[in-house]
Amino acid sequence: MPMKEDDFADWYLDIVEKAGLSDKRYPIKGMNVWTPYGWKIMRQIDGYIREEFDATDHDEVCFPLLIPETQFAKEKEHIKGFDEEVYWVTHAGKNELDERLVVRPTSETAMYPMFSLWVRSHQDLPLKVYQIVNTFRYETKQTRPFIRVREIHFFESHTCHETCEKAQDQIEEDIQILARIAKKICLPYTLLIRTEWDKFPGAHYTVGIDTSMPNGRTLQMGSIHHYRTNFSVPYDIEYENETGEHLPVHQTTFGMSERLVGALIGVHGDDKGLVMPPGIAPIQAVIIPIISKKSAEEVSAECARILRLLKGAGIRAKLDDRDARPGSKYYDWEIKGVPVRLEVGARDLENGVVSFYRRDTEEKGTISAEDIVPGVRMLLDVISESMMAKANEVQKSRIQDIDSAENIPQDKILRFGWCGCEDCGHKFEDTYGFKILGTPYHPEPYQGSCIICGKPVDKPAYAAHTM
Amino acid sequence: MPMKEDDFADWYLDIVEKAGLSDKRYPIKGMNVWTPYGWKIMRQIDGYIREEFDATDHDEVCFPLLIPETQFAKEKEHIKGFDEEVYWVTHAGKNELDERLVVRPTSETAMYPMFSLWVRSHQDLPLKVYQIVNTFRYETKQTRPFIRVREIHFFESHTCHETCEKAQDQIEEDIQILARIAKKICLPYTLLIRTEWDKFPGAHYTVGIDTSMPNGRTLQMGSIHHYRTNFSVPYDIEYENETGEHLPVHQTTFGMSERLVGALIGVHGDDKGLVMPPGIAPIQAVIIPIISKKSAEEVSAECARILRLLKGAGIRAKLDDRDARPGSKYYDWEIKGVPVRLEVGARDLENGVVSFYRRDTEEKGTISAEDIVPGVRMLLDVISESMMAKANEVQKSRIQDIDSAENIPQDKILRFGWCGCEDCGHKFEDTYGFKILGTPYHPEPYQGSCIICGKPVDKPAYAAHTM
Repeated sequence: MPMKEDDFADWYLDIVEKAGLSDKRYPIKGMNVWTPYGWKIMRQIDGYIREEFDATDHDEVCFPLLIPETQFAKEKEHIKGFDEEVYWVTHAGKNELDERLVVRPTSETAMYPMFSLWVRSHQDLPLKVYQIVNTFRYETKQTRPFIRVREIHFFESHTCHETCEKAQDQIEEDIQILARIAKKICLPYTLLIRTEWDKFPGAHYTVGIDTSMPNGRTLQMGSIHHYRTNFSVPYDIEYENETGEHLPVHQTTFGMSERLVGALIGVHGDDKGLVMPPGIAPIQAVIIPIISKKSAEEVSAECARILRLLKGAGIRAKLDDRDARPGSKYYDWEIKGVPVRLEVGARDLENGVVSFYRRDTEEKGTISAEDIVPGVRMLLDVISESMMAKANEVQKSRIQDIDSAENIPQDKILRFGWCGCEDCGHKFEDTYGFKILGTPYHPEPYQGSCIICGKPVDKPAYAAHTM
Repeated sequence: MPMKEDDFADWYLDIVEKAGLSDKRYPIKGMNVWTPYGWKIMRQIDGYIREEFDATDHDEVCFPLLIPETQFAKEKEHIKGFDEEVYWVTHAGKNELDERLVVRPTSETAMYPMFSLWVRSHQDLPLKVYQIVNTFRYETKQTRPFIRVREIHFFESHTCHETCEKAQDQIEEDIQILARIAKKICLPYTLLIRTEWDKFPGAHYTVGIDTSMPNGRTLQMGSIHHYRTNFSVPYDIEYENETGEHLPVHQTTFGMSERLVGALIGVHGDDKGLVMPPGIAPIQAVIIPIISKKSAEEVSAECARILRLLKGAGIRAKLDDRDARPGSKYYDWEIKGVPVRLEVGARDLENGVVSFYRRDTEEKGTISAEDIVPGVRMLLDVISESMMAKANEVQKSRIQDIDSAENIPQDKILRFGWCGCEDCGHKFEDTYGFKILGTPYHPEPYQGSCIICGKPVDKPAYAAHTM
């Protein structure tokens, strides 16, 4: 296995393959097959997404995949931003279609003609919907499973509000939802308002959600956008207010993709394989019988008892009773990153305990067999907290303040002064090869000066090499 | 509202719209928007499908949507069967693609090149996978929500086996799975082996799963196929057996679509709207407070208590505490087909009961407030059984034995003698305008003679007008 520190790119591909997350041998580059274990992880994440959006009064919907070209082209910035990277359906059966159809890269232009029919009065607002679907981008850069693919599994929420302020409140709610989802996956992130030249095509402003990967690069896992009325005007989404005026709605969107899986591989994995956060691990605890001739029956019975108890308590447990050596079973489940391994042998039985192994720290210990459910539950909690704390620390250590253009470290996220003007921004990006990720969504105390023009500034900018 | 008996087509469209199941105003004909209530029903069904396939050791996967033309064309019958009705992606960004891509109509040709890599030895068999995805058919006939659409939500299971017999055993398992899913939706169905000219392109044989709709036509809800080695030979899916021979695998598939939703609307709905089978109703019981000035507080408290108890017991319950008249609430939930309505007013409180209304039979009664959970649970069970029994009876009454070509009823499923030869089959179809659905998968005792040539036959054939 390649080592994570030495060769991140190969290590990553190796884990994706060995842990059975996806198969990239499908005959279209960048369109991969979700194999069972990878898909189970994605579905765990989707489950939390549904829970969160349902709990915040979003309705789940499912819009068509294909969008007529005329609908797609209504918002000028949007089409300009996407027309290099969409797939086109031009024929059906043996006929050429009257109008070409875009395979959705995102669903603004599929949804908004319908929103225009759905929204009539202020009583229809807020309109809050989401969907979990496949989207498509014709990537020309090198593809990489979960991180840069051409068919993307993602969720997108779309909302309409009476005022700019109410849309802004929605963004605050999105940020709370994000915090809860990221905690389940133990992923740290930054919230940065993207530069004008990097915002979503058509957005008023874009908040990028980035995490940092072991090779020092950042990975954008998702984004939140405030559209104001940029789409509602061309798509004619108007409501009648209480005094009879017709006004365009203010809109937001929030989306994250399968990059969450890419992020968790990179952030948590180690040289033995995947390390799964307990919150989304398809298997949270695997039970391995350590069978000797004398103890076979008692060990099997105890393993069955533990499995039944754990499952009954809602813990995702699995008994590995394959006819194979324990060592080879350990190896399999370590690659798949199962958070807790439980071993039951003759000596454990004698001592009234179950041996455990923590995948994240590789620590071993025992749990009283009587307290197996609270014991495993506590262990899972401790692992989650410890994975989160470790990931936070690593992320923090990757951010470096710089106050001059000399000796810029190549493998850090830079925090520095930028006056905010496009000239200085482009000059910085072009000179140093970093991409400006933006300025903090949540204000940070800062005193410095623009790294290009020297003007004093009171908020920092962030830049990094990106995945 | 149009009446079901008088004008089924209009009644159907009206229910789809009024119950909020889908919106057909999307600007591409036959590609509809799943609105929240319709999508919730589909997701309940998907949930059972996952339960069933997971419990029978199928792994869930997710394959790419697009298929290169060369992969698609490997099995000759298959491509011949589909080339009139697939969508083609020909361009990406501003480039014409080197090879055209098919938007999947079904996933044999996406999956089997990968199966060829996955299957090596008899130890890899059986291979059993399924996926729940969107598929596409360029329908030229008139479209109708859920029944004839161009983007289809469906599940497909695909299996590989060592022998023809083991594949046959899989079909028996599929039939058991089907029985359990159909029972949740209270849908009767027939299992008929399709004629040679109507089987799935590439199949050895096809079992059609049909139900009958109120207009007398049958609706195919899904199908099960035995492929033998028809795909594994061209797609090179071989395994090494215990003696070192390389042999092609025997394959099966099983698929059902959103037509299940179309079927349940047609089979169960009435002139007041949808009637939801409790097993898949997004809301199984709706609680309506009957508030008077004096009792407001107590009624609210009792409704909250009932909601908490029902939800705690895993019953999908909802409290409708909108500021509206009870009558307009009744109307809304009747259209949506909620199986049980619970009403709580001052008199109910006095009597220590909760009033109920059954959507399916419109019967009313009371449940002791103390026994609300077992009471509602029993009511839901009774409703399920009664909906199933009623639907079975209707289905049975729609099948008619005919022994001569005179006075053939137009609104029935015909059961008749057919010698099985293609000539007589085509002659029957062409002369009478019925479609032969096939012969029973499970043998039925029968003595008769071919309706065309008069030869004696010992199994019946079925024919109908189809949706």
